[in-house]
Amino acid sequence: MSIITAARTLDIRFPTSIFLDGSDAMNPDPDYSAAYLELQTDSDDGLSGHGFVFTIGRGNDIESNAIGVLASRFVGRNVEELLGDMGATWREMLHDSQLRWLGPEKGVIHMAIGAVINALWDLRAKRAGQPLWLHLAGLSPDEVVDLIDLRYLSDALTRDEALEILRAGKVGAEDRIAQLLEEGYPAYTTGPGWLGYSDEKLERLAREAVADGFQQIKLKVGADIDDDKRRLAIARRAVGPDFRIAVDANQRWDVDEAVEWMSQLAEFDLAWIEEPTSPDDVLGHAEIARRLAPMPVATGEHVQNRVIFKQMLQAKSLAVLQLDACRVGGVNENISILLLAHKFGIPVIPHAGGVGLCETVQHLSMFDFVGVSRTMEGRMIEFADHLHEHFVTPAAIVGGRYQTPTAPGSGAELLESSIETWLFPDGAGWKAI
Amino acid sequence: MSIITAARTLDIRFPTSIFLDGSDAMNPDPDYSAAYLELQTDSDDGLSGHGFVFTIGRGNDIESNAIGVLASRFVGRNVEELLGDMGATWREMLHDSQLRWLGPEKGVIHMAIGAVINALWDLRAKRAGQPLWLHLAGLSPDEVVDLIDLRYLSDALTRDEALEILRAGKVGAEDRIAQLLEEGYPAYTTGPGWLGYSDEKLERLAREAVADGFQQIKLKVGADIDDDKRRLAIARRAVGPDFRIAVDANQRWDVDEAVEWMSQLAEFDLAWIEEPTSPDDVLGHAEIARRLAPMPVATGEHVQNRVIFKQMLQAKSLAVLQLDACRVGGVNENISILLLAHKFGIPVIPHAGGVGLCETVQHLSMFDFVGVSRTMEGRMIEFADHLHEHFVTPAAIVGGRYQTPTAPGSGAELLESSIETWLFPDGAGWKAI
Repeated sequence: MSIITAARTLDIRFPTSIFLDGSDAMNPDPDYSAAYLELQTDSDDGLSGHGFVFTIGRGNDIESNAIGVLASRFVGRNVEELLGDMGATWREMLHDSQLRWLGPEKGVIHMAIGAVINALWDLRAKRAGQPLWLHLAGLSPDEVVDLIDLRYLSDALTRDEALEILRAGKVGAEDRIAQLLEEGYPAYTTGPGWLGYSDEKLERLAREAVADGFQQIKLKVGADIDDDKRRLAIARRAVGPDFRIAVDANQRWDVDEAVEWMSQLAEFDLAWIEEPTSPDDVLGHAEIARRLAPMPVATGEHVQNRVIFKQMLQAKSLAVLQLDACRVGGVNENISILLLAHKFGIPVIPHAGGVGLCETVQHLSMFDFVGVSRTMEGRMIEFADHLHEHFVTPAAIVGGRYQTPTAPGSGAELLESSIETWLFPDGAGWKAI
Repeated sequence: MSIITAARTLDIRFPTSIFLDGSDAMNPDPDYSAAYLELQTDSDDGLSGHGFVFTIGRGNDIESNAIGVLASRFVGRNVEELLGDMGATWREMLHDSQLRWLGPEKGVIHMAIGAVINALWDLRAKRAGQPLWLHLAGLSPDEVVDLIDLRYLSDALTRDEALEILRAGKVGAEDRIAQLLEEGYPAYTTGPGWLGYSDEKLERLAREAVADGFQQIKLKVGADIDDDKRRLAIARRAVGPDFRIAVDANQRWDVDEAVEWMSQLAEFDLAWIEEPTSPDDVLGHAEIARRLAPMPVATGEHVQNRVIFKQMLQAKSLAVLQLDACRVGGVNENISILLLAHKFGIPVIPHAGGVGLCETVQHLSMFDFVGVSRTMEGRMIEFADHLHEHFVTPAAIVGGRYQTPTAPGSGAELLESSIETWLFPDGAGWKAI
């Protein structure tokens, strides 16, 4: 038996705004950041659990504080009990009748719940000596369903339907695990497409993406229509007529504006338009999707919880579901979103990039392949080549594919040297700027 | 010229869980709390601005911290500039490209934005020597529209439509102001209906509500169907066949469950069913409303922003819109919600009770009457007789009607003696418990 001895919460920020990595129509100068949590125990195994919320700079202190307040409830608690019933541990936070007022199930408090449960998942997978995706794939259908919260979902997904999906996911699972370890998982790259990059850099990176074996590139749009046309023409010329190009507006438009703007870009044969409007606007996305058909609409990185995703699936608001490892309430809620997407026949192509999202979402996609969707057809994981060097087990891309992680844990652990350098505002890196 | 000299943020909690005031099917033991802000200036007038977020206990520290971080940006800034363009001041927070990641426009960060802008409104109204409702009513249509953010709304409400509504609101405004000062504004009471109260207390309070002149009572439901039937029978007998009784499920149900449960209570001739399911579930509310018609569905106290309200109006999810002074981004966003509701012909009947909600929402309803809806027909403001004694200018009810406030400001200012007693956890009141 062991107990949680400390919840160490850190405000880690990287000065990415200096290089305009990550610049888009709504986020001109992000400093990619992690509101980071380490749960320490008194066990002889020396293992800690790591989780985080990705943010883009200011406000990372607010999120770190929320994680710290929330995680403090587990200090002194029995680790085996907490890890032994991860559904109950999660619901203790989710259904806290007083804390719930701060959401419910959205924004700062909900992402904090995600960071805390994800840190516990990291610890549990490390204790099992397994990468998280494989650890999840080893659970029985009943164990998986006991992890999630079906409240507010029963008009779209019942417990029996979830069990049926997961039972089907057991058939051939060993083969799919072997396939993953052999082949990895396909990726696409947002690397070429940031708004702050020059035309020359865009063209060079687009050619490199094709040569590197990625499935798709993605460009940011929405600041200026003429710039968008020029940049898409450059990109289309660079990658050729048959390569997939997606575009991302980062919530820039209202409904009519989205339709008008994107109609002008349809000639470039786009794989999808991502985040055309407010992530809260289920009906707006549905209207945009209807009017822009057959151009697919993608969204999800800012979708707050399973209830919004449920409606987007019901209303046909999206053709691609982009879940995020940090936006919703952690692994547990993401499993319910994978099940919903499968029920509605919509592929999940996670949001990644930022800090640590590539490291963490790959586990969700790989669990999805083994145990839920059973296919990589039409699936990819986003990749952006930023900040991986700060992680103990960085995401690895070879030939445009994620290499399947085999190290125990969830991939969320930062190097201590990186923490010391980029702790905000007192780390050596920030003092030097 | 003056500057903001300090942003004083306080975690104030009242031990209401001891008496089960405020108990319902989802909130068994709330400690009504305020994450409270005072903006001080160096002006000779000695006036401060006060704002707060209402919470129900745990997490009030998280919200207070968020308000403090956010408000600190205004310390050292020119007060006249901030107050002179309240639209720009609000949008500076709302559109901060980094902070936006924590929402966008929802949860802890969005409510913090509301508290900060509301504190500035309080200061502005005090400087003008006017109660907030009258101060808002004195703005020109263009000034009002410049306060709000029409992004994501144009498929439901354009700038021209908003201006048209506000211009119509100028006709006869002086008469409506006189009428308000003369008659006050109708109220309904939730006092009798908390789940924790005995049948005897329910019956006594229901009779008193009628005798006191309230328009309606409201009962909490959703914990046990037999209890609900018994309590509604008691209430209906106590108030007679023609008096309005509303019920409130506080998000307890899924869609089918809501329809089945409420179908069993329809015989009691209910004024509305409030919060039958998740506040995020636009389509779920619409389905419930369709299947329970003609029973009206009410919701809003947990609706995060104007984009969800827009969709609820588009999808016919609600027949009564219950805005809250603290849930969305403050006075500015609430004005946009009043305009949306008017456009769709839906009455606004604010959520109140808690700490300070009665004191603050009355200003919004009264501005609505003078300048937007131009009617009190089918309108009320919720009232619960809790904690008013802690406010400098407490809400006043006479003959079941809110007495129109005439003191300068927004009503949000707490007595210093109450702050000292109920500061958490070090106030004298908490030390004594």
